[in-house]
Amino acid sequence: MSNNDNFKKSKNTQINNKFKPKGNPLSNKTLRFIPLGGNGQVTKNMFVYEYENDIVLVDCGMGFPSEQLYGVDMVIPDISYLRDKQSKIRGLLITHGHEDHIGAIPYLIDKLQTPIFATKLTVGLIKNKLKEANKLNSTKIVEIKPSEQFQLGQFRVEAFQVSHSIPDSVGYAISTPLGTTIHTGDYKFDWTPLDGKVTDVDLLTEYGRKGVLALMSDCLRSEKPGNTLSEAAIQEKFEEVMEHASGRVMITTFASNISRVQQAINASMKFNRKVCVIGRSMDNNVQTAQALGYISIPRDLLVKQENLDKVNDKNVTLLVAGSQGQPGSALNRIANGDHNFVYIKPGDEVIFSADPIPGNQDAVYDMIDNLSRLGANVKYSDITSDFHVSGHAAQDELILMLSLTKPKYVVPISAMHRMMRQYAVLAESTGVKKQNVLIVDEAAIVEFDQSGARIKGEIHTENIFVDGIGVGDVGEVVLRDRKVLAEEGIVVVIVTVDKHRSNLIGEPDIVSRGFVYMKQSEQLIKEATDTVKTSLGNGEKIKNWLTVREKIVSDLERFLYRKTQRRPMVVPVIVDV
Amino acid sequence: MSNNDNFKKSKNTQINNKFKPKGNPLSNKTLRFIPLGGNGQVTKNMFVYEYENDIVLVDCGMGFPSEQLYGVDMVIPDISYLRDKQSKIRGLLITHGHEDHIGAIPYLIDKLQTPIFATKLTVGLIKNKLKEANKLNSTKIVEIKPSEQFQLGQFRVEAFQVSHSIPDSVGYAISTPLGTTIHTGDYKFDWTPLDGKVTDVDLLTEYGRKGVLALMSDCLRSEKPGNTLSEAAIQEKFEEVMEHASGRVMITTFASNISRVQQAINASMKFNRKVCVIGRSMDNNVQTAQALGYISIPRDLLVKQENLDKVNDKNVTLLVAGSQGQPGSALNRIANGDHNFVYIKPGDEVIFSADPIPGNQDAVYDMIDNLSRLGANVKYSDITSDFHVSGHAAQDELILMLSLTKPKYVVPISAMHRMMRQYAVLAESTGVKKQNVLIVDEAAIVEFDQSGARIKGEIHTENIFVDGIGVGDVGEVVLRDRKVLAEEGIVVVIVTVDKHRSNLIGEPDIVSRGFVYMKQSEQLIKEATDTVKTSLGNGEKIKNWLTVREKIVSDLERFLYRKTQRRPMVVPVIVDV
Repeated sequence: MSNNDNFKKSKNTQINNKFKPKGNPLSNKTLRFIPLGGNGQVTKNMFVYEYENDIVLVDCGMGFPSEQLYGVDMVIPDISYLRDKQSKIRGLLITHGHEDHIGAIPYLIDKLQTPIFATKLTVGLIKNKLKEANKLNSTKIVEIKPSEQFQLGQFRVEAFQVSHSIPDSVGYAISTPLGTTIHTGDYKFDWTPLDGKVTDVDLLTEYGRKGVLALMSDCLRSEKPGNTLSEAAIQEKFEEVMEHASGRVMITTFASNISRVQQAINASMKFNRKVCVIGRSMDNNVQTAQALGYISIPRDLLVKQENLDKVNDKNVTLLVAGSQGQPGSALNRIANGDHNFVYIKPGDEVIFSADPIPGNQDAVYDMIDNLSRLGANVKYSDITSDFHVSGHAAQDELILMLSLTKPKYVVPISAMHRMMRQYAVLAESTGVKKQNVLIVDEAAIVEFDQSGARIKGEIHTENIFVDGIGVGDVGEVVLRDRKVLAEEGIVVVIVTVDKHRSNLIGEPDIVSRGFVYMKQSEQLIKEATDTVKTSLGNGEKIKNWLTVREKIVSDLERFLYRKTQRRPMVVPVIVDV
Repeated sequence: MSNNDNFKKSKNTQINNKFKPKGNPLSNKTLRFIPLGGNGQVTKNMFVYEYENDIVLVDCGMGFPSEQLYGVDMVIPDISYLRDKQSKIRGLLITHGHEDHIGAIPYLIDKLQTPIFATKLTVGLIKNKLKEANKLNSTKIVEIKPSEQFQLGQFRVEAFQVSHSIPDSVGYAISTPLGTTIHTGDYKFDWTPLDGKVTDVDLLTEYGRKGVLALMSDCLRSEKPGNTLSEAAIQEKFEEVMEHASGRVMITTFASNISRVQQAINASMKFNRKVCVIGRSMDNNVQTAQALGYISIPRDLLVKQENLDKVNDKNVTLLVAGSQGQPGSALNRIANGDHNFVYIKPGDEVIFSADPIPGNQDAVYDMIDNLSRLGANVKYSDITSDFHVSGHAAQDELILMLSLTKPKYVVPISAMHRMMRQYAVLAESTGVKKQNVLIVDEAAIVEFDQSGARIKGEIHTENIFVDGIGVGDVGEVVLRDRKVLAEEGIVVVIVTVDKHRSNLIGEPDIVSRGFVYMKQSEQLIKEATDTVKTSLGNGEKIKNWLTVREKIVSDLERFLYRKTQRRPMVVPVIVDV
């Protein structure tokens, strides 16, 4: 299954030529590929393709903060590399409408100042975002169709249809005189998708026949053998539950999973159930998808949550947002018994039509426990795999993509390092040479030229944190402080001194939060106050304030550790009066 | 498979008798069963059996703090229920030596003041703990053997051997005149365990034949179909890797998994590999197990980490602590490249012979990613199930236990609520009546008497947090503060006032940590200072200090939220001079 023979026959044969004729226009031209995110982390997808004076970008997604990133709302790609290159950027190609591919657009579009290219539904979702951020007019948004070709500088670009867990997903064939790179975006091969739109095997085969320089492939499920099941199996399972349930059926899934929502609607119609959409994200996405024609809901099928009590329990399906246990989301409030309109009744069927994303597991299982405590029959992935399939290709599909496109080089993208390593094994099994698999994390520079491909160092990137309306103002220092505050709390010591005579006035004040409950720790606080007084030399004149500050901190830290074996942050405040 | 027929024939028939003859000695006697932990949380196992003036306790384990419990080191059972009942406590029965069954002993033994009963290895591990806490002489520790009967007040107790992931595990048959309850502890049915000690089917059958009032059963894997695989399969898989590895083989597992350690040792001997134990917890457990005869290591097989460079890479196996990604653990340091003696070389085989416990997944996967970045070939559960089996019974084994013991009532224990719900389905499938399955969380009171069994309200329990050497001094208030500090940071406002004239002296001081990086936010801090001055009435005389404090907080909170959309904790400090 080696691609090499095909490749040599292709029009790009010249780049294999070891004898570069002088003056060959390609001789010192280089294609650079740089992941600004995605690689090594799954989310925060953004990729740079750079060829001479032209740059195209693919995706502009947000990252979900890890538990360690206290208080951070989201992480966005660091685009410093593009700072002096703004005039070279020809366009931002978007593969699909998931947050980890479009979520950073409102934060970065003003700096990028480049048109966005995306398919219809994706354009709708991006416009929603820009509207919310009051930035709808920041840039031109071009709606494209799969198999439409367009030129961006020296890049010839063609989108190709792929199946994924949101409609209108595409990958991009991005060609330069050096050859064609296939950027898959997130994909799977679903031969019976609900909307009939299968991954475009014809087009991929055609590119493979002509010769593909490099395949940049999603590899999130490279650890999973076989094929990811088709979306088609799910509706039947919904129907089974709806047929036999004596009461309400609640289905929770990702709000963006439009096909899943459509299946829930289809099944509900079959069993004479009205549908009630619960939760803002679910509501927004259903409305956008419906307005753009990606979802079909008969008039009168929907019922508002305020009117739920007017419908018989066995004649209603609830589509509930919050499958990931997000605090404040509809399902979370229902599980905690504090939703305004929906409370669990014994016998309610609750279907998790989504797996917990790593990092959300504790929150999701808490909900499942609480829902079952309230009497619901909960169906979730640990007890049944009937109600969810992934949107990503498993091993056999990844191999199929490799076999269709026959790339010379492969660069796994949008996955954790261990998954990229597993992908390498698959790629080698199809005949790609070991040294032609380039496993790179964020910020690595992959260079292609006439003589081949290589990892050529890396650029500098940082995590850019969004907290509230601040972008980038929460950095390592603040996060390090938050970690100490979270685990140990803070002790503030206020020392008032006479600035003329340089000695203490009154008693030092000690205020603590998150350390010990002060009302119950009077003795400890008293001893701490004494410790500070001793550090201050018990009323003697103070000469060197810097030294004294340090002494207060180290003496008090030592005292508190000895007493509690904890290390709260000690902050001295010297007030001169 | 109903137990009822058998049960009626048993000597306990009287408790089914609806017509209680007056003066029947059992007429108003009640057996109470109360989980003080374990149920609804898996860990922190501790159970109360109370019959008239006698109490026996089973297990005394620690709980692992969730991510929400900032800075808490561990959670221990709340034994307030036992406060006035100390004189009734006849003994503490321990099922096995895992932390979630013995970890709270050093914290609670002084209050319980009762002898501990445990098997040999478990006694060794408990003594280690008590020694570390300087409490070795706090209580009597009685070493028991399986199938030995002993009397504790009116309780007749018999330990029965079970197989689990640590040797010397037992369950307890606990009998009162009302009948026998079988408390399984953690168990599985491994027919070919390494130490030859299978779960005691004979004894359980015997109890089942005589009649079992209630089965309190581990049900952690009630969601998993079939049988848990035998430990026996693992050694062969270790051997395969060792045979083919051209360099070092590193195996990480739970330090308490003595059988797994023995298998790694056996396999290493077969392939002429020395064994190096890395990490304190692994070292301690191997030493204790070896001293007590639970592990056999030939003289000269072990090599010290300092001498690793004197051994050929292909002649060494490393047994490494830290399979759960604990910060500071040996494997974590190796993965981060900062271990003193072990650094990863390309081609090293790293075997995870343990699954990540929920809550540890992010940490474990981070290690796997880092190890593979450094060039190791990592084998973990997502790509192979060859190297780990659970210590808990899966569905078919749970059904076997039910079928052997034929209980009238069942109380699932030591699992999350959803798992107890699944267990109920299994129990019903063996003929236990639906209403005889009692699903209870921590603190529920299950009562058995002549007329049957029921959930009769609950006692009050709280989470008791251990932080440093403090037990119980970190409570809800401190944790709520830590959460705000972690996510938003703190702003302390120091206002110095003339206590005679009641007006401001100088400028208010503002100190913040974990909110914004102060050096980069001078303008914000200046405006915040002005806000405080305005709250103080710009130099006017202050009459009501309480009102002013509140005004400072609310004005500043509003100002900061408007500027940053964050809500740091605002703490005003008024200094009178």
